[in-house]
Amino acid sequence: MLLRIEHLGIAVESLETSIPLFEKLLNTPCYKKERVESEGVNTAFFKVGPNKIELLEATHPDSPIAKFLQTKGKGFHHVAFETSNLDEEIERLLQNGFELIHLTPKTGADEKRIAFLHPKSTEKLLVELCQDQ
Amino acid sequence: MLLRIEHLGIAVESLETSIPLFEKLLNTPCYKKERVESEGVNTAFFKVGPNKIELLEATHPDSPIAKFLQTKGKGFHHVAFETSNLDEEIERLLQNGFELIHLTPKTGADEKRIAFLHPKSTEKLLVELCQDQ
Repeated sequence: MLLRIEHLGIAVESLETSIPLFEKLLNTPCYKKERVESEGVNTAFFKVGPNKIELLEATHPDSPIAKFLQTKGKGFHHVAFETSNLDEEIERLLQNGFELIHLTPKTGADEKRIAFLHPKSTEKLLVELCQDQ
Repeated sequence: MLLRIEHLGIAVESLETSIPLFEKLLNTPCYKKERVESEGVNTAFFKVGPNKIELLEATHPDSPIAKFLQTKGKGFHHVAFETSNLDEEIERLLQNGFELIHLTPKTGADEKRIAFLHPKSTEKLLVELCQDQ
């Protein structure tokens, strides 16, 4: 079951300039920064009630975020839904004809188990499912 | 104060094909469809816990959504934050250097008072603020 929008991922060119902007926009401090080496991203998190905003900065030119910035420019990157049972949710989506990038959940930022759906089965929308470890 | 992500707006080419897809993806029925003539959009809403997904379809070729689809293609369009006091929030953002498209809130979909920030002050992100009427 999908419980809520856990976070909304936003691609930025530089955390150094974007963090102060989003702190003013959201009127809340960035409460966590985390480097996810396997994904080539530096992340910064903000809380908005039950939801989070996650800023994503590329750590190197071959990072998926660097490629996203080159083709689409900065802005909305993905939406992550919190699930009550990630494995059951993956199974339900597969049975409904969706394709997943990760059939087996992996560890993402913020100490979560995550899996991404393939955008070709979601009208190009990049959708992440996650669950606390 | 920003209370939560009230909804995430997603531009689609056709509600007729996208509603069944999102019903399967989110595992919940579309609970409301609404035409907002002033904005040139047909909307469809889905609940995910405390948040909503709003699909946006253009009603005519000059609709802002039609132009968005032409330039950016379907996908994430805007994020709307629920505020405890929309007028205070507009004032706070103006004092912090943000530009607003609507200095005076107007009536949007879902019986809400809304105001959009100008993307040039939010790193191109289209951000809506809203409050129940």
